[in-house]
Amino acid sequence: MKLGRISRSSPDGDQIRLVAVEPERERVIDLAQAYRIARQGTSASAAAARRLAAAYFPSSMAAAIAAGPAFLDAAQWAVDRAGDDASLPLDDVDWVAAVDSPVIRDGLTFPLHMQQFHEKVGGGLPNPQLFKTPGYFKGSTGVSYGHDQEVPYPGFSEFVDYELEIGLIVGAHGSNLTPDEAQERLFGLTIFNDFSARDVQGPEMGMGMGPQKCKDFAYGIGPWITTMDEIADFDALTGSVRVNGEEWTSTKAEGMIYTPAELLAYVSIGDVLQPGDLIGSGTLPNGSALEIDKKLRPGDVVELEISGVGVLRNRLSAEPVVAPWWPQPRPYPFGAEQPEETAR
Amino acid sequence: MKLGRISRSSPDGDQIRLVAVEPERERVIDLAQAYRIARQGTSASAAAARRLAAAYFPSSMAAAIAAGPAFLDAAQWAVDRAGDDASLPLDDVDWVAAVDSPVIRDGLTFPLHMQQFHEKVGGGLPNPQLFKTPGYFKGSTGVSYGHDQEVPYPGFSEFVDYELEIGLIVGAHGSNLTPDEAQERLFGLTIFNDFSARDVQGPEMGMGMGPQKCKDFAYGIGPWITTMDEIADFDALTGSVRVNGEEWTSTKAEGMIYTPAELLAYVSIGDVLQPGDLIGSGTLPNGSALEIDKKLRPGDVVELEISGVGVLRNRLSAEPVVAPWWPQPRPYPFGAEQPEETAR
Repeated sequence: MKLGRISRSSPDGDQIRLVAVEPERERVIDLAQAYRIARQGTSASAAAARRLAAAYFPSSMAAAIAAGPAFLDAAQWAVDRAGDDASLPLDDVDWVAAVDSPVIRDGLTFPLHMQQFHEKVGGGLPNPQLFKTPGYFKGSTGVSYGHDQEVPYPGFSEFVDYELEIGLIVGAHGSNLTPDEAQERLFGLTIFNDFSARDVQGPEMGMGMGPQKCKDFAYGIGPWITTMDEIADFDALTGSVRVNGEEWTSTKAEGMIYTPAELLAYVSIGDVLQPGDLIGSGTLPNGSALEIDKKLRPGDVVELEISGVGVLRNRLSAEPVVAPWWPQPRPYPFGAEQPEETAR
Repeated sequence: MKLGRISRSSPDGDQIRLVAVEPERERVIDLAQAYRIARQGTSASAAAARRLAAAYFPSSMAAAIAAGPAFLDAAQWAVDRAGDDASLPLDDVDWVAAVDSPVIRDGLTFPLHMQQFHEKVGGGLPNPQLFKTPGYFKGSTGVSYGHDQEVPYPGFSEFVDYELEIGLIVGAHGSNLTPDEAQERLFGLTIFNDFSARDVQGPEMGMGMGPQKCKDFAYGIGPWITTMDEIADFDALTGSVRVNGEEWTSTKAEGMIYTPAELLAYVSIGDVLQPGDLIGSGTLPNGSALEIDKKLRPGDVVELEISGVGVLRNRLSAEPVVAPWWPQPRPYPFGAEQPEETAR
């Protein structure tokens, strides 16, 4: 099943609605609407049908996933019985981020990407620790963008980049899991665009605390989630990147240091996986413009494709968005020998 | 006002309830209960009173704060009219984390702590970038602990430490704010214990992606939130640490590189502050055991005190919690010269 989120207007203002996606039929099905209609067909009152529909299909994909198998069962039941009565044209809906993840984590697991990235930034070899334990950072959940939503080009950067990744979506709570147990909690896949401000990334990552401004301005998540039953072979997934319609990259999801199940299991050690969590696979080989000596400009349209999922398209705003305030540097209190440039 | 969260049993299972705290009267007031009683006193039906109470006072502190001034107005209204009818003894409630933050960020802003930390770990001088832009990491929201909740001692560490911090709680959405605008969105303060696994911290932070296991096993948040109208002077706040009843540290919240308002404003640049977000102040000077040549053991009881807020107490589990799986190291594909020890 393919599941996404769209925005629809209502007398109560715009509402985020969960949808089942049928790309081959070029339509989406509003799940709460379909469920309500189907449930009324089993002689439920309109009010009771709406109440049950709202409980199964809230605005939050994470909250829906948290219901466990009941969520997919109810979705399939509604689609089978009233899909035709609650469908909308695929090309005429307003997408939002496919999932409102409690936590966004992003891994770094494709060695070829690591190597090429380090060559371009002159940073030596990738850190050997990445081959002992999975490395990942955490991102702000406040800046998630869905398919076709415009991404503000941040005024503090002159080098915004995309990163083509597969987003692993967590299906159930779990802590201290084995990889087998983690595999059972893998709900589905989406496309994850880990937008990055390369000129800010070096100084920030040098502080060792992970990204701040270099990542937390935009995460593309969508267009929808494909559940795992539709994914025959993760390693056989292919990806491509098009910018303004021109293909920049064609690549494969092979060579990961850790499997998706190992990545989820490692995250769960001491920590807690929550339903709807997104864990980025890390950038696929050649999955960033930096690696292939290209560079985005404001106004560019970025399309990321992953086989079995779809295409996630986002336009960068033509005008950079400039914040009204930026901190002034403070005196460095630990001696006069303050380096001019901060080491990576 | 002081606002926290407790767990109460009900026919529907344990429920998290919002409370107003009156430490001087040694009681808490269940806000939904008080509101329902008071609203019935204005001739609302029981069902309507319960419905309104649930809307104002859900289990989520973040969701309650998101209502804006309506939340505090309704809380004060309920406490004034029915506080006596919905009170519980302060010492006889089960606390949970005072807030379920959408995003947990943690700063690094007290230079004396930085200096002492670096001296102990032999890491040279603090990164000058920290004096150009605020440094902060993001933490998992899945491992928040409230007052008196036991924190599992993670089996992957032999050096668990506490960090005494002030948690800044965000009151309203905001992006690209000035410090003045950010100040208006500062809802209140809590105590934040940024538990840390020191022996894991070095190798992990060396990857540059921020903490994984070294932080994401426990964040202490509580005992409650004190709203900003009760805080006369942030810089005058004092703190102390007691371990098993013995005072280890007495300190002050002075010397921050950036003010709380500047920290919030900086976070908001390109990013979005969400109601209920927690931003840690960074560790107060002498606010960790590492700095003062002490070390926690499993079973120890840590009490962190901040004037104007209260005391946050957590016991570490006596037995370490060992995960059933840990990744095997993978071959390092970039040459034979793999360092024995990973650089910080």
